[in-house]
Amino acid sequence: MSVNYLDDGELAPPSLLSLLIESLQCLPGVGPKSAQRMAFHLLQRNREGAKGLADALNRAIDEIGHCKNCRIFTEHESCSICLDASRVRTKICVVENPADVFTIEKSTDYKGLYFVLMGSLSPLDGIGPQELGLPILERRFSEEAVDEVILATNSTVEGEVTAHVLNEMAAKQGIKTTRLAQGVPVGGELEFVDQNTIAQAFASRKTY
Amino acid sequence: MSVNYLDDGELAPPSLLSLLIESLQCLPGVGPKSAQRMAFHLLQRNREGAKGLADALNRAIDEIGHCKNCRIFTEHESCSICLDASRVRTKICVVENPADVFTIEKSTDYKGLYFVLMGSLSPLDGIGPQELGLPILERRFSEEAVDEVILATNSTVEGEVTAHVLNEMAAKQGIKTTRLAQGVPVGGELEFVDQNTIAQAFASRKTY
Repeated sequence: MSVNYLDDGELAPPSLLSLLIESLQCLPGVGPKSAQRMAFHLLQRNREGAKGLADALNRAIDEIGHCKNCRIFTEHESCSICLDASRVRTKICVVENPADVFTIEKSTDYKGLYFVLMGSLSPLDGIGPQELGLPILERRFSEEAVDEVILATNSTVEGEVTAHVLNEMAAKQGIKTTRLAQGVPVGGELEFVDQNTIAQAFASRKTY
Repeated sequence: MSVNYLDDGELAPPSLLSLLIESLQCLPGVGPKSAQRMAFHLLQRNREGAKGLADALNRAIDEIGHCKNCRIFTEHESCSICLDASRVRTKICVVENPADVFTIEKSTDYKGLYFVLMGSLSPLDGIGPQELGLPILERRFSEEAVDEVILATNSTVEGEVTAHVLNEMAAKQGIKTTRLAQGVPVGGELEFVDQNTIAQAFASRKTY
């Protein structure tokens, strides 16, 4: 711990300020420098905000769990999307992360349901079908009248492998699967698009 | 509040997740996007860290105050620097922010005492001598055997004005003041140094 100018000597426990600076580093993208800046900012200018943040953290950790159907974060048993009667219940869009749900909700007019894997298959890291909740999804495939599974896992090696496994799972129940299209990003210049993407986009070219 | 896909309708209170995302934005440099990323990261991968952060925040807000002599953040009545018998008690280095103490401690072998203003004179924002704790400093000037006041306020207009006022305060008690040297930053190329700095550095040139 390098931030110790307020410590009470070598044998004393680290000061509360050092503790706060260290704790702030549990946030992604926050290193010792930003943590120090945050700590000073909160103590100097926004103690009320810090209090609110502590409360929000405590409540979130204690109360937010996963929706029993789709594994989205929610403080209730089922999330608001699963409970929403206006949503099309025959489509399930499978994504890796909760943030992906947010992105799809914001960018598309998709009105079906979701399933959040909370990761992708990665046997070396001990992440198998059980960790991704695939048994829950399999039960939904057989119990619900699903007619399309949208595989919206990331376009990475792990994401593709996961999509492949999900596709086999759906095929066993005779359910159609679709996968997000791959190609040149909208607004992207060909010069700056990587070769794999160009190759994919070229092979999947459509009638104009 | 744009992050509301988990809300339970328009009339319901915002979900705990939205509350957490909003609360995280009290941190400096954290906008809606990073706050969302942080919230998902904490919920998904580091609930223990989040709990620790909440505790650290609560303890810091409740217990950390200011040293009665130098206004540095501390959970005790006096900070460890003021209590350290090995420090030279005849020198006081006056800085604007607590972070400046850390910077000076790390970069120099200064072994005197400090005084933290917690800002700089800015009458338009309602920050006057009282807010900067100048009465406390004045008392120290008269009660302690101070022989040098190092004016380490920022090299901004407000910092210079503050230094000027501090200099007059010290002069009244017959105490010598010094100011950090201005010039070309170490490692800096003249081409990229601003004109004011070059002018200052040129005027203050020293025998080689």
